[in-house]
Amino acid sequence: MRCLAQVRPTVPLLQRAVPGRSLPRYGSIATRKLASASTSAQPRLSQLRVQQDRLMETIHYTSRWGTGARWGERPTDTGMSRLTLSDADKEARDWFVDTTRSLGCHITVDAIGNIFAVRPGKKEGPATFVGSHLDTQPTGGRYDGVLGVQAGIEMLRVLHENEIQTEYAVGVVNWTNEEGARFPVSMMGSGVWSGFFPLEDAYNLRSVIGNQATLREELERIGYLGQTPASYESMPMAAHFELHIEQGPALEAERRKIGVVQGVQAYNWFTVEIQGKDSHTGTTPLANRSDALLLASKFILHSHRIATKHSALVTTGILTALPGSTNTIPGLVRFTLDVRSPKNETVEAVAADLKRDFATLASGQDVGDLHAGGTAGRNEFKVSWTTDSATSATVFHEDCIRCVREATSDVFGDRTKELVRDISSGAGHDSVYASRRCPTTMIFIPCRDGVSHNPAEYSTPEDCALGTQVVLNSVLRYDKLRKAADA
Amino acid sequence: MRCLAQVRPTVPLLQRAVPGRSLPRYGSIATRKLASASTSAQPRLSQLRVQQDRLMETIHYTSRWGTGARWGERPTDTGMSRLTLSDADKEARDWFVDTTRSLGCHITVDAIGNIFAVRPGKKEGPATFVGSHLDTQPTGGRYDGVLGVQAGIEMLRVLHENEIQTEYAVGVVNWTNEEGARFPVSMMGSGVWSGFFPLEDAYNLRSVIGNQATLREELERIGYLGQTPASYESMPMAAHFELHIEQGPALEAERRKIGVVQGVQAYNWFTVEIQGKDSHTGTTPLANRSDALLLASKFILHSHRIATKHSALVTTGILTALPGSTNTIPGLVRFTLDVRSPKNETVEAVAADLKRDFATLASGQDVGDLHAGGTAGRNEFKVSWTTDSATSATVFHEDCIRCVREATSDVFGDRTKELVRDISSGAGHDSVYASRRCPTTMIFIPCRDGVSHNPAEYSTPEDCALGTQVVLNSVLRYDKLRKAADA
Repeated sequence: MRCLAQVRPTVPLLQRAVPGRSLPRYGSIATRKLASASTSAQPRLSQLRVQQDRLMETIHYTSRWGTGARWGERPTDTGMSRLTLSDADKEARDWFVDTTRSLGCHITVDAIGNIFAVRPGKKEGPATFVGSHLDTQPTGGRYDGVLGVQAGIEMLRVLHENEIQTEYAVGVVNWTNEEGARFPVSMMGSGVWSGFFPLEDAYNLRSVIGNQATLREELERIGYLGQTPASYESMPMAAHFELHIEQGPALEAERRKIGVVQGVQAYNWFTVEIQGKDSHTGTTPLANRSDALLLASKFILHSHRIATKHSALVTTGILTALPGSTNTIPGLVRFTLDVRSPKNETVEAVAADLKRDFATLASGQDVGDLHAGGTAGRNEFKVSWTTDSATSATVFHEDCIRCVREATSDVFGDRTKELVRDISSGAGHDSVYASRRCPTTMIFIPCRDGVSHNPAEYSTPEDCALGTQVVLNSVLRYDKLRKAADA
Repeated sequence: MRCLAQVRPTVPLLQRAVPGRSLPRYGSIATRKLASASTSAQPRLSQLRVQQDRLMETIHYTSRWGTGARWGERPTDTGMSRLTLSDADKEARDWFVDTTRSLGCHITVDAIGNIFAVRPGKKEGPATFVGSHLDTQPTGGRYDGVLGVQAGIEMLRVLHENEIQTEYAVGVVNWTNEEGARFPVSMMGSGVWSGFFPLEDAYNLRSVIGNQATLREELERIGYLGQTPASYESMPMAAHFELHIEQGPALEAERRKIGVVQGVQAYNWFTVEIQGKDSHTGTTPLANRSDALLLASKFILHSHRIATKHSALVTTGILTALPGSTNTIPGLVRFTLDVRSPKNETVEAVAADLKRDFATLASGQDVGDLHAGGTAGRNEFKVSWTTDSATSATVFHEDCIRCVREATSDVFGDRTKELVRDISSGAGHDSVYASRRCPTTMIFIPCRDGVSHNPAEYSTPEDCALGTQVVLNSVLRYDKLRKAADA
């Protein structure tokens, strides 16, 4: 679509205040905004307010479908276990369809089960979407994905009750299987829609939790195998805004309220295999060993040193040592490396350093004194690398980012600089695929201790509402931007 | 039994040579020994010679029961997979019983399936035994255990064909389930016999390979649930000699032919558990992590440094990292530590150093620059230790060791110092339990590359025969020692 970057909105967005509503408040900001509200018959758009209580009640109400483990004492202190295309997911989807339809939306379900709820605008053309996903990890929480969808529904409610007609259609999308937990491909629904993941491959995925049904069978079973082709061509989007918990500690640590997401880190996944030699723990002197697990330990330690040097992230999440017996020196170790940085070239530099240094260490030469202090082994190793996936950095769209920046100014006024920062997403999201086909960005809010994918994942009601308010204002600003571009 | 340590044999042991037999030869030694053989009507005992070809043919013939994986091109280049109490083990046992009976032995099968074949001597009293086991690892070789039993059978054959009547009975014992592979307790038959492992616990063990039958059921099924109580009291032994491959590289590296085993290393097995915190690899800065696998890597590297300092052995054979996902930082790691030394106090010192230093590292303080160069994490860890087993060092009996030393002098003459050394066993053997109830020692021969528990496990025919010759001479010397003690 046409780039809107150079177009400035020319029409004032504020129209009319609606007294008496439940509003998200941030210190004196909300009050100040209220005080400046006009009293004319129609609300000025920038004074539309999301309802914090309604938003939170809806999040907690819909958590009945797939309630997870308890982590605290309050009734809402439980996590979520709403695996994609499960019975619980069907109920959440049915609720999504009924609710958005009651708010005046047209529903489209595509061939991969993505649900698009579109509220018509004054003009024809693709909708500006708010989207995320209603599925969760098996031991997930109430916010990851869910908040992004509920922010969209709260937006629809505010527009509906204020009888606002936007210039163009706006919509909410619930993407299928973002988590990749039950069918192990993450961001799957948006991946198929964007054309980057083949539909047939998705259909043939088998559940790795519970039964072994294919994804297509489960779509059919719960009634969400839609007729519309799963494609950005059949269901184009004008833009995609996604509200999400940060899943990291930065905003909370800096007491910020909003992160304006500039893009998503590049990440490469590798599997490293070390072939040493099995031998008896009791009869093999240290000097005669080719201990694959000892070498792997040195590699892992070294990977953190290299990551620190490059200000990148490196993690080993899976390690397998074989044959796996207390009295046998492991002859084979495989482990994963997850290398991330906002810059593609940093990921490449980290990987290059690691390949070079692992080879040196495996040959018996030292790097960083890792061999020092231990008896040199026989060092008869073979080390091999496999690249499991390579994902380039995603850079979000300047128009969307500008709308979010302006929306945060609407909400935070002269405290914007203090409470809002730019941020990079460490995790992948549906917005990664959306950004390949339409202007996209994300909005982050703080979450407690940076925890996610955990029942105890938590953001305050205030922060959820502030984030939703920023989403609402961003969409309205984008809508005006589109109108201005057409003028 | 009475300690014979101060009693010297006073009767010459050599009696008559038997010309024309197949003999084990070590360079000029066997020839020299032959040349000095007397020509009187009865062989001098020290000139009795084991038959290398017969020994090796028997080892390879009996490998038909449980033939394992091929590792080379010759017909005998296959390993063994003769799990205890399997059909293959039953056939090997039947052969053992038939063969020893044909050599004039009385057979006793005890309640745990140990088979004792006893060849009567001139006097009453417990037999001097040669023993080991016919069961193997699932991917084992032709020598571990098997050689020790076959050395005993070759001894019986030499005595039988030369019509030698020993002073006291001599015997061969095949211990049940030394490997602990199918029923996961090693040295089990000798453990029950010695009173250190309860019979009922052994009976209730379930097969972890193939079916899930109990050990008692399998003993009954193959017909080896004997009537004699499984006890050193019902089946006492005068002594126990065990020939075994070294399972380590020392003898081969030093071009030695025999190791006179002084005892078995002490070893303690621990499981260390590190509780950190699961978190997202992409969104959690290095400084905010409590990465249990990174800490485990530091522990493992440090354990090798501590082992080197103490000239001990430390190995991690099993490591489990949870939850086990490429993009989740492991919050829980468990790993084993196998700590060994010939001295109990060294094992204790290594364990104490590791417990101290692991706690220091877990708290965030550094030891040995292991934290250096990486971003300090949050270091919110709990580290716990479990002692899985603690086995004191075994010291073998001075009488048995003296007999073996003298036997090596018989065989190697003035090359004894060059070709024979004292050695400590790194692995456990049935002789550990036997030594609790009677004078015991072991004799090691070299094995290629120190490899065992592997199809390619290999010792040369010459070395197998030399070891068997040392066993024969040791038993005959011990028999004389007993007679002298009675005089």
